[in-house]
Amino acid sequence: MQKRTETKEALGRKYPESVVLVTTRAPDGRPNVMAVGWVSLASETPAMFVLGIDDSARTYALIRKTREFVVAFPSERMAKETLFAGTHSGRDTNKFAATGLAMSAGAKVRAPLLSDAVANFECRLAAVTKPGDCPLVVGKVVAAHVHAARSLKRLYTLGKGYRLGGVRPAVKPAGGKRRR
Amino acid sequence: MQKRTETKEALGRKYPESVVLVTTRAPDGRPNVMAVGWVSLASETPAMFVLGIDDSARTYALIRKTREFVVAFPSERMAKETLFAGTHSGRDTNKFAATGLAMSAGAKVRAPLLSDAVANFECRLAAVTKPGDCPLVVGKVVAAHVHAARSLKRLYTLGKGYRLGGVRPAVKPAGGKRRR
Repeated sequence: MQKRTETKEALGRKYPESVVLVTTRAPDGRPNVMAVGWVSLASETPAMFVLGIDDSARTYALIRKTREFVVAFPSERMAKETLFAGTHSGRDTNKFAATGLAMSAGAKVRAPLLSDAVANFECRLAAVTKPGDCPLVVGKVVAAHVHAARSLKRLYTLGKGYRLGGVRPAVKPAGGKRRR
Repeated sequence: MQKRTETKEALGRKYPESVVLVTTRAPDGRPNVMAVGWVSLASETPAMFVLGIDDSARTYALIRKTREFVVAFPSERMAKETLFAGTHSGRDTNKFAATGLAMSAGAKVRAPLLSDAVANFECRLAAVTKPGDCPLVVGKVVAAHVHAARSLKRLYTLGKGYRLGGVRPAVKPAGGKRRR
């Protein structure tokens, strides 16, 4: 049974929502990182991601300038660093220094990989559109990397107020059929 | 520690991934529904979704024609219906008849709401782009609805091969600190 409500309230039912970290590197060499919750695949061949990145973000300016970035899946052990990256601006803060996030060099782009992430995707800028109040940045994957530990799991936003954590498949109650 | 790999292999680490059902209604009145795993918010004010919808899908043709659709968050009880919707084409199958999915009337668009979904978002087509091999359909939310049962949870794709199910926050082992 559906009842009509405000869009914002209905969107409160979206969690858990996946979160990624996006790294960039300024022409002067300084790296930056931000957290992005609006993300989806956008193409299979070639693989592409679409990301909602606020146009006031330093990450947005760096992507427009360098046309490169890395999309990383933070692991559930990176909740603290992801929260920091998502709530501070690279304009005033060196977020790598502040969080201690470990980085390593990519194969194709200058933006850094996150060493402890589940996976990293090096991207070249393919398109930017702005259908609403947020630019949609599309990146074409030009190289991919995974963490050697296959058991590492992605991080999610679990609810409002930047609650971050891992998730596990829901187990049906013993006896099989789930009650309504 | 990162090791370089094929993009496809690295994308295998993306799960769980949220899934939505997209409903449409043909000019002759017949409703259709498909499952979409490539979905993200695209704007806050107004609220918009961006969806990757294959251009061979009947849903894509109906969205282009009617410029309306509904994005529904299936509940974890709707795994069977979502799997069916995601693996059959509306060109040959009446997916509502085949699945028994319950529908109800929206407030602003002719595409149906899914009565048992966690939430429904009535959308009007705002933009279509095609940066890679898949159209990105952007819909502006014009009305929203939620299920009366607040405890109802969203459905996710848990892994390759269309494994669908619910998720729960991971609980840290007793004692607090998680082992590496």
